[in-house]
Amino acid sequence: MGYSNSHSGRLDATFAALADPTRRAILAMLASGETSVNDLAKPFKMSQPAISKHLKVLERAGLISTSLDKQRRPRRIEAAPLKEANEWLEKYREFWESRYNKLDDVLEEMKAEQANKAETKSKRRRKNG
Amino acid sequence: MGYSNSHSGRLDATFAALADPTRRAILAMLASGETSVNDLAKPFKMSQPAISKHLKVLERAGLISTSLDKQRRPRRIEAAPLKEANEWLEKYREFWESRYNKLDDVLEEMKAEQANKAETKSKRRRKNG
Repeated sequence: MGYSNSHSGRLDATFAALADPTRRAILAMLASGETSVNDLAKPFKMSQPAISKHLKVLERAGLISTSLDKQRRPRRIEAAPLKEANEWLEKYREFWESRYNKLDDVLEEMKAEQANKAETKSKRRRKNG
Repeated sequence: MGYSNSHSGRLDATFAALADPTRRAILAMLASGETSVNDLAKPFKMSQPAISKHLKVLERAGLISTSLDKQRRPRRIEAAPLKEANEWLEKYREFWESRYNKLDDVLEEMKAEQANKAETKSKRRRKNG
């Protein structure tokens, strides 16, 4: 129960942190390497305190950490929570793939029907022509 | 830009909807088939209005829909937003796998070092013994 609860709590924090376009963009930037807060703020039309708030949310969710370099204090991405979120979603993969497979089946059926109709028509034409 | 924004907005709604243990549990229940609101409420120590609120969040995010059966109005899962969220996370798969690979490398190095030390010790012992 304890594990399950803390696991559930981590998923809550991860998904909540990912529910914001700025935070997702920050993660995308950090995926290419450690970045200082200054450089992270550059692409956004946002004050540095606003960016710092987003960094705090990401840090609390364990999605980023601060590197040891005391002067620059660059942030780096932490992949573990992304892996956990991915694992949760993966449980539904079979499900959504079967959904799409079902759609594929329907489309195949429609095509077959159409082909059938076309054939019947051309047969009729040959008969009558 | 329009597409990107609405796509980003959909991801916001999906991740926000997934950031709650009750809503994740509701999706897990719906994964095994359409379920009435009554049946969905049963496993939770929650009022039906509280459950209905969660269902509304899921429905607004496009994660569930209401089936046509007018009397039971059962809910069913919609997989498309889960697929989109998964696709976003998948962009980081290579990244977190390489992280874990790096950790594996470090562990392998540590093992090799340990084995080396043990060998040196046993050699010394053989020399001295």
